[in-house]
Parts: sequence; structure tokens; C-alpha cells
Amino acid sequence: MNHTETLLLDLFLVFAGGKLFAEIFERLRQPAIVGQILAGLLLGPSLLGWLQPSDVLAALAEIGAILLLFTVGLETRPRDLLAVSGTATLVGTLGVVVPFALGYAYMRATSHAGTESIFLAAAMVATSVGVTAAVLKDAGALGTQMARVILAAAVLDDILGMIVLAVVTSLSEGRVHYLQLAIVAGEAILFSLFAILLGARIVRRLEPHVARLRTSNSAFVLAVVLCLGLSLASVYVGMAAIIGAFLAGLALADQSERWRLAENVHPLYEFLAPFFFVYLGVQVNARTLTEPGVLAMTAVVTLLAILSKLIGCGAGALRLGWREAVRIGVGMVPRGEVGLIVAAVGASLHVISDRVYTVVLLMSVLTTLLAPPALRALLPGKTTARDS
Amino acid sequence: MNHTETLLLDLFLVFAGGKLFAEIFERLRQPAIVGQILAGLLLGPSLLGWLQPSDVLAALAEIGAILLLFTVGLETRPRDLLAVSGTATLVGTLGVVVPFALGYAYMRATSHAGTESIFLAAAMVATSVGVTAAVLKDAGALGTQMARVILAAAVLDDILGMIVLAVVTSLSEGRVHYLQLAIVAGEAILFSLFAILLGARIVRRLEPHVARLRTSNSAFVLAVVLCLGLSLASVYVGMAAIIGAFLAGLALADQSERWRLAENVHPLYEFLAPFFFVYLGVQVNARTLTEPGVLAMTAVVTLLAILSKLIGCGAGALRLGWREAVRIGVGMVPRGEVGLIVAAVGASLHVISDRVYTVVLLMSVLTTLLAPPALRALLPGKTTARDS
Repeated sequence: MNHTETLLLDLFLVFAGGKLFAEIFERLRQPAIVGQILAGLLLGPSLLGWLQPSDVLAALAEIGAILLLFTVGLETRPRDLLAVSGTATLVGTLGVVVPFALGYAYMRATSHAGTESIFLAAAMVATSVGVTAAVLKDAGALGTQMARVILAAAVLDDILGMIVLAVVTSLSEGRVHYLQLAIVAGEAILFSLFAILLGARIVRRLEPHVARLRTSNSAFVLAVVLCLGLSLASVYVGMAAIIGAFLAGLALADQSERWRLAENVHPLYEFLAPFFFVYLGVQVNARTLTEPGVLAMTAVVTLLAILSKLIGCGAGALRLGWREAVRIGVGMVPRGEVGLIVAAVGASLHVISDRVYTVVLLMSVLTTLLAPPALRALLPGKTTARDS
Repeated sequence: MNHTETLLLDLFLVFAGGKLFAEIFERLRQPAIVGQILAGLLLGPSLLGWLQPSDVLAALAEIGAILLLFTVGLETRPRDLLAVSGTATLVGTLGVVVPFALGYAYMRATSHAGTESIFLAAAMVATSVGVTAAVLKDAGALGTQMARVILAAAVLDDILGMIVLAVVTSLSEGRVHYLQLAIVAGEAILFSLFAILLGARIVRRLEPHVARLRTSNSAFVLAVVLCLGLSLASVYVGMAAIIGAFLAGLALADQSERWRLAENVHPLYEFLAPFFFVYLGVQVNARTLTEPGVLAMTAVVTLLAILSKLIGCGAGALRLGWREAVRIGVGMVPRGEVGLIVAAVGASLHVISDRVYTVVLLMSVLTTLLAPPALRALLPGKTTARDS
């Protein structure tokens, strides 16, 4: 098979397979993204082996995640996020501290080395903004207070997760560069605040110039440039690309209707998001579960990953009442992108074993598979949301 | 730089750079795609070296070309193509025979080996449907008789080009498998006729089922599945993927309005087509022009490539009158995808030298840069088209 043939077969399998499973899961009244991840597990190395991880699929998955967060940002207004910033900070911070503490304690109790324990703990802290956002969006719940708290807290703990990664990396190298860490943290926080507070104002200033461009659909083109530019900038300041995409969406949220951004970005999201979710499943090789010790460790780590977010984030959201606190706790359970980055860095530094790497990968996919149905069942007005 | 950083920098440079140059060229009243190809030359190895050819960019370029031809197919009705099929067959066939003969004669006259001569000749036959379609689309001329003749003839000579490739490949291996060739040719022609004649009918049968799907925007999803599926199928029967995408567009053309396909596919096209055009420029390293003999040979081969299509295709279209024949001849000049495939196969079989490979690459880009401004100047009502 030549390059073109492999590419087209991959594109067809991911898109058609992902959408087929999404359709089946919608009919079973289950979240579409769970269907897409299972399509990846089925088509990937775990079962059929028709899809293999590749640079091209990884790139399309990354673009899919960027467009997903961009879409979610477009539907969120900065002032709504700022309104919940107190609760979200508490939820995000406790949602980092508790998983880290439980993860570290478990690893030390089972006699793992200090550095390996720290890396597994760090891989447990960051909620997958992508998965959570898609579930909230599919359920039509993006406008609720709960969704805003979850989104803001998930963005915050992605930022904290990248800072934790910087800390544990320098610890594993034997010395902590406090100044460097302060710079990483400062850059990430300043960049995010700058985008949230001033992004929308800058976009408003650009507005009169947009109409004068010769390029067709110039507002959409400019929006995509901003999305790609902020994604790149956010990688430069040490955060995940998707945070930049989300911030770009936020900055453009006020213009979204007038510039007809939602209707232009939505087809891109619909085309590319399946690559993100299906690829989550393709990256996993479930056969590794049969290797000695992997199954038991995966079960314990996944359980701790679920409980620690429920407890930490739930406690942080208690002021909103019990029900809302449980929903927020469940919404924060899925792990993804950032946890996988931490595990990959640990593996490349040779401080975590293949077994621990596999466990982190499986934990990410399992939390991502389990949380959406639970969240959907807990959502208010679920029958309408389910049948929409 | 890690993977993600490289990916995001590439995405940003291609999209923002391509759109910036498109805007500048629109203001200079030149075709946008010429600006995009020049952006690739500027950012690629020829000048700045900020972009390098890569698997990921090649994949995005291929997806861009597929969406381009899909969009063009959606705006073309099968019956309009069939109405010009007589003229188009003559234009397409003469547009293959004349370039092949001139190319072969020149190579033999300059004492190249027989096999190398045949490969260069074969690389000169196929018009770039992608480039031509984009120029016609940007000029708002897709609905004209001339555009239909050019499109149908360009699709036909892509098919003929792939058959010629099969012939010259088996020649270079010392024996011609007539049966195999007949099968390749038969498959390609049957597949295309089947899609043109029956595709629309099959889609109409599917219509009542589409509304019953739970997937949001199900008609669009189905259209993308058909586009990717026919692209894959067309590679399986030995044609370029973009022909399958064009055929999928044709099959859906009648539904395009009711299913709101154009407005959903257009953002995809606007996002990904720049990757196709910018990458054309990135693939070229203009510094090779300074190598001994390359400049002179490129000049001659490019001149022959232009004249042979003007003469061959112009003669084939004479029954439509002189003016129309010249326009069609110019419209058929750009070479691209299929010529590059032929040259790549020749290089992989070690029957063409690096120098000849470079010349084919440069000829493709030069014909692609020169034809669009000429075509645009020759179009009827050019002032309106230019200022739109």
C-alpha cells in the first residue's frame, strides 16, 4: 500500500467508523463520544488492527481537539467564566491536589521509586477539557452554571498540570530551578488572563478592518488564524495547544453571531473531532491488560482517579449544593491529553516503566469512557437532552 | 522543537501565510492561488526554509485537494458534463497525445535514453484538475460551457494519464501486460461512468433514510463519507484520489442545495485548500535551478508543456470557435498531481535522473503559476470577475 492509499483508508475508517458508532450510541441513548472511542478501540491495535497510531493521525487528532475547544470557546463568554472564577479556582486546585496526593500515596505504599511515584501522581491531575466539553456540548448544557465551573476549572487544572509537569521534570533531573518554574507559571497565567481580559477588546478593534479584506469569508479566515496563532503561542508558554484554542474562541465569542463563526467552524469541528476521539481509542492497546500486574494496577489507579476528582472537585463546589457538587465532580473525572503528555515525558526520561505508562494510558481511556454516561444521567432535564 | 510545536507552527505558517499572499494577490488583481503557491516558495526550502516537506503537510495537502474537487463536483451537474462529452473527449485525448509526442521527441533529440524519454513524456500529459478548477471557481466561471469542457477534459486526461503511467511502467519493466493494462483502463472508465450515470440516482434513493439518522447534520456527514469512500475507491482502481472526490461531488450535486452541502463543505475547503496550494510551492526547491543544465531544460520543457496543450486542446475545441478554443487551451495548461506521481514512480524505478525529476517538478509549478493569470485575462466579462 502506498502513502495515498494508507492515508485515504485511515481517513475513511476513522470518519465513517467514528460516525457509525456515534449513531449507534445515540440510539442506545449513550454519549456519541463514547461510541467514537470504542470505534478506535475496535479498529485499532486492541482488536482488529486496521488502524495504527501514526504521525498523520496524531496530527489530525490534535487539529480535531483544537477545533473542539475553539468551538466551545466560541459558545462561552469571558464574563460568564469570570463570574464563576472563585468556585472554579477552588474546584480546579483541589482537583489537582487530591489526585496528586492519592496517586503518590498509592505508589509509595506499593513500593515504587520516588520519581516514578511523582510522575504517575502528576499524570493523574489534569481533567481532559476536550472530553468534558464535548459531553456538555452534546447534552446542550454548555450554557449552565455547572458547565462554566467545569470548563473554567478544567482549563485551570490543565495549566496547573503543565506547571506540575515542569516541577516533576526538574525534580527528576535532581535540581529544582525555582526561577524557571516561576517563569513558566507566570507566563501561563499572564497569557491566559491577558487573552480572557483583553482578547475580546482587541478583536472588537479589528472589526472595522475585517470587512475591507478582499479574501472571501474574511471574518472566518481571521478567526482561524487567531485560533492557530493562540494555540501555537500557548505551546510556546508551556501550556497545551487546546488551551490557546479555547482562549481564541473566548476572545471571539461576542463576534460569533455577527461574523457567522459558529456556522463556519461547526463543519470543521464535525469533520475533525472524530479524529480526536477515535484516536484516543487507537492509541490504546488493550492487549497489554493481560500483561502481569497491569490489570490490577489499572483497576486501582482508575478507581483512585475517579474518587480523587469526585472528592476534590466535589468539595470545591460544595457551596453550590450537593447535587451540583456531584455533577461537577463527575464532570471533572475524564483524563486525557495532559496526563498522556506527562506520561510520555516520564517515559522519555526513563523514570517511568512501560507498565506504568500503559496504566496511565488505560486509566485515561477508562475515565473518559465511564464519566460521560454518568454525567449525562445526572444532568437536569436529562430526558430532553437525551432525546434531542 | 517537539512534535506539537512543529505541527502548530506549520499549520499557522501555511494557513496564515497562504491567506496573506492570497489577499495581496487579490489586491494586485491576480489569482489568489498564484499567491498561495508563491507563499509556499517563499516559506519553503527555496527561500526562507521555515517549512519543509513532511508526511503531515503532504496529507493535509491531499485532503485539501480532495475537498477542492468535491466542492467543484457539488457545483457541477452530471448532465452538463455529458452534454459536452464529445468536445471534452477530443480535447482530453489530443491534450494527452500532443504533449506526449512533443515531450518524447524533445528528449530523444537531446539524446536521453528511451525509458527516461517515455517517463518525461508521460509526466507532461495530465492537466491539474485542482488548479484549473480553483481558477474557474475563483473567477465565478464554473457555470460556463468552457468550464465544463475544461473540467470534463481534465478529468478524462487524469484518467488517461494514469493509464499511460501503467503502460510506461510495464514498458520500463521490459514487458507489457496487455491484459493487466486493459483491466486498469476498463476499471477506471467503468468506475467513472458508473459514478456519473448512477451516482445521483443512488443518492436520491438514500434521501428518505438520511432524515431518520440521529447524528446531527446527518446529510453532511453522509456526503463526507461518500467523498472519502469514492476517493479511496478511485485509488483502488488506479486513478488519483481527487477524481473520486469529484465524482462524489457530481453524485450529490442535485442534493447540494436541499441538504445544505455547499455551505457545510465550503468552510472545510477554505480551511484545507491553502494546504494544497502552499504545499505545491513547498515541494519545490528553486535552488536546484542553479544546477548545471536544469535551468535550460526547465525552460524548454515548460515551453513545450504550454505549447502542446494550447495546440492539442485548442485544436480539439476548435468547433466552439477560436476564442473559446484558446481559453480552453490555456485552461488545460497547468500540470500538477498526476505529473508529479508519474515522475515519482519513474524516480523510484531509477529510470529517470534527479535532474529530470526536478525539471518535472519545476515545470508543474511554472505552468501552474503562468496559466491562471492568462486564463483570467482571457475570460469574458473579466473586469467584473476580477473586481468581485
